[in-house]
Amino acid sequence: MNKCGIFDSGIGGISVAKEILKANLFDEIIYFGDTARVPYGNKNESTIIRYSLEALEFLKNFDINFLVVACNTASAVAVNELKKEVSFPVFGVIEAGVEALKNEDKNSNILLVGTKRTIKSNKYQNFLQKEGFKNITSIATPLFVPLVEEGLIESEITDKIFDMYFENIDKEKIDIVILGCTHYPFLAKTFKKHFPNAKLIHSGQAIVEMIKNNYNLTSVNKTNIKLFSSDNPTEFKKVAKKCLKL
Amino acid sequence: MNKCGIFDSGIGGISVAKEILKANLFDEIIYFGDTARVPYGNKNESTIIRYSLEALEFLKNFDINFLVVACNTASAVAVNELKKEVSFPVFGVIEAGVEALKNEDKNSNILLVGTKRTIKSNKYQNFLQKEGFKNITSIATPLFVPLVEEGLIESEITDKIFDMYFENIDKEKIDIVILGCTHYPFLAKTFKKHFPNAKLIHSGQAIVEMIKNNYNLTSVNKTNIKLFSSDNPTEFKKVAKKCLKL
Repeated sequence: MNKCGIFDSGIGGISVAKEILKANLFDEIIYFGDTARVPYGNKNESTIIRYSLEALEFLKNFDINFLVVACNTASAVAVNELKKEVSFPVFGVIEAGVEALKNEDKNSNILLVGTKRTIKSNKYQNFLQKEGFKNITSIATPLFVPLVEEGLIESEITDKIFDMYFENIDKEKIDIVILGCTHYPFLAKTFKKHFPNAKLIHSGQAIVEMIKNNYNLTSVNKTNIKLFSSDNPTEFKKVAKKCLKL
Repeated sequence: MNKCGIFDSGIGGISVAKEILKANLFDEIIYFGDTARVPYGNKNESTIIRYSLEALEFLKNFDINFLVVACNTASAVAVNELKKEVSFPVFGVIEAGVEALKNEDKNSNILLVGTKRTIKSNKYQNFLQKEGFKNITSIATPLFVPLVEEGLIESEITDKIFDMYFENIDKEKIDIVILGCTHYPFLAKTFKKHFPNAKLIHSGQAIVEMIKNNYNLTSVNKTNIKLFSSDNPTEFKKVAKKCLKL
């Protein structure tokens, strides 16, 4: 019986849960969204570590034997602390995103986008450099989360904000864009428009590949999912189920 | 010895603290910013009440005898619960904002802007209606907080977002704009530009007026202020002191 615990600061990690659900690797997924304290991206490292350990404590009640940190900010600062607490595998979306690039040309022009905390942590950049990538540009794009939450997926405002954040970038030359925040895949169409030659790296798909490559899990007929949140569960479950098409 | 406790979900309430500080009404101000759980605006009512009661518990340690709820969201949902806990006065920025309008023409065209939770609570609207105001338009403008935090106080993007939120409003006809979120005074210039005939209601100034009108406090030579936050206090104090010009 393989049970995968997943946590995120809020609803964004559902984009990761959706991919894991589709892959039918686990008997059960337990998802915890820390919606009472969302977002993590603008908070201090020690606070994010504390919140991540509390999420793990909660998920351990369900006898999980895999943990996925579906929040880029928590992946950037808390994965090592989480690994110390348990004997089962802990996967962060950052490691997965980097592993997804292992067969790419090391001279690729990589653009990394994420929250202030993710970018400032340098975790992604360090991993990429260790893998031999040389041309990495990283930009914090904190307005993207509220844009997605306001439903401004494709709009003139969205385009203008893209122009602002990427004004010093030769967009046509970017080969790979790492969507370093679980909200960003919702902006995929706008990313495709502004970076016409780039491959987009999506955390959810990357994590599924990473699990498949590292563990020989027998596929199941159907993965069940249980949803929990620290704020109002009714509202959260409604939105999550809609995203998951349950 | 008059000690005023002030709390907000984060740094925004410093705009309120600044006005109270300038007014020299109290010997001491104790400010608590709940930066580890900011923002409150997108969270559930019961969660906001719980966080507000915890803030009060913390502030009670300093023997405060006045409490100012400098967060519009918490004012909208938690003031009554807070009043039940203590025998000293509790002021919310919403009541203060409404009191600031008491001499205005009841037929004024009022525009209320705030977070989703503040607008949805209907607290402001109900207070205004009780006062006899008839023409109230309320619009949730959740992008304004991240705009301010990104420093986009005056910009083409800011103008476009104003155009989007207020596209169905005859801006020239608005007489009063209630800035129903402590971050919004930073956008005052853009508000002035889009609503050329409107008076702007600022929570900090309104709360000072409300305290002066209701309590006969002897003015002091200088108010001291102590700053606390639930997340990294160093970063918080640095920004707060800069805002307070300390």
